[in-house]
Amino acid sequence: MAKVIFTEPIPESVSVPLSSPDMQRQFGQLLSTGDGADVTFEVGGETFPAHRSVLAARSSVFNAELLGPMKERTDASIRLDGIEAKVFKAMLHFVYTDSLPHIDAGEVMPMAQHLLVVADRYNLAKLKSKCEGTLRGHFNTSTVATILVLAEQHCCGALKDACFEFVAPLGKFKALTASDGFEHLMGSCPHLLKELVANLA
Amino acid sequence: MAKVIFTEPIPESVSVPLSSPDMQRQFGQLLSTGDGADVTFEVGGETFPAHRSVLAARSSVFNAELLGPMKERTDASIRLDGIEAKVFKAMLHFVYTDSLPHIDAGEVMPMAQHLLVVADRYNLAKLKSKCEGTLRGHFNTSTVATILVLAEQHCCGALKDACFEFVAPLGKFKALTASDGFEHLMGSCPHLLKELVANLA
Repeated sequence: MAKVIFTEPIPESVSVPLSSPDMQRQFGQLLSTGDGADVTFEVGGETFPAHRSVLAARSSVFNAELLGPMKERTDASIRLDGIEAKVFKAMLHFVYTDSLPHIDAGEVMPMAQHLLVVADRYNLAKLKSKCEGTLRGHFNTSTVATILVLAEQHCCGALKDACFEFVAPLGKFKALTASDGFEHLMGSCPHLLKELVANLA
Repeated sequence: MAKVIFTEPIPESVSVPLSSPDMQRQFGQLLSTGDGADVTFEVGGETFPAHRSVLAARSSVFNAELLGPMKERTDASIRLDGIEAKVFKAMLHFVYTDSLPHIDAGEVMPMAQHLLVVADRYNLAKLKSKCEGTLRGHFNTSTVATILVLAEQHCCGALKDACFEFVAPLGKFKALTASDGFEHLMGSCPHLLKELVANLA
């Protein structure tokens, strides 16, 4: 250890936080190498090694499931149903790097819908709001019904309001009731119909 | 899972990485709570719980020591000598948050010197260059000798060059030889004297 000499300080040069692409790159590398993985997820027939402390740091739900009292009940291998492998993979990428992997053009909309569900399930607020933003950019008369159901089921108030605003005009509302998504809406959240009608401009 | 409908995509709205204060805050919280810590460091009489995967992601040296073949040799509790607790604590803070904690004005210079040593030991390039930057801002005739020794011992070429530039004037060189740090320099890196003399303007 070098001899220490005190001189006039420059605190700001030491205490200012640095922007952090490093952390994203380094944790992304940890994910891709799987070094020291201490938990494995089996999703849609694929296997994903991961790190409990990284998942726990990023998600209060993973924290409770992997480090909390339930920990004893969680194996080193955890099987998840109801999630597609590619969706879980994209979520893991977000957890480790705070960004999403490349998503093919045609996959953006469905991926945003599935990721919204997963983000809500694991309380990944930033991912959830990112998906909401993407969905808001995809309103049309064939998608709005499905998006409205998602918003309703996953407590996305702003997204729900945006859906209502979109279908306030009678013409849009009629097109919505003619869409495939409308059956899904009536099957999942029939109570929304009254709200939709009351909302008509 | 909601019904999926394909529409025209907005890839950039999904694939653009986000800036990441979240990760810094969340891993900082993991450090402060110690949730799921799987390794403990004993440093200067203090105990620091930590997470192998976080340390491994951020430092290739920790990766080798905590996850590599040496893993078997590393206990759940690891004692480190030659590092002050407050220095190790600051390094841990940097590893988890990519920023340094508040450092008292009078501590900035010694902390930068000690952190440079630790950053070099654990191959934390960003922390090391941050410390070099701080030290470059602290040249004076009583500190430059010690900083030069540090630069020499820890392969900081640019910092070493800056020291030589600072003491090129004969007056500065004389002041350096009269400083406490000069004894330390002669004791640690006597070969530097020739370089210093050859460098005189």
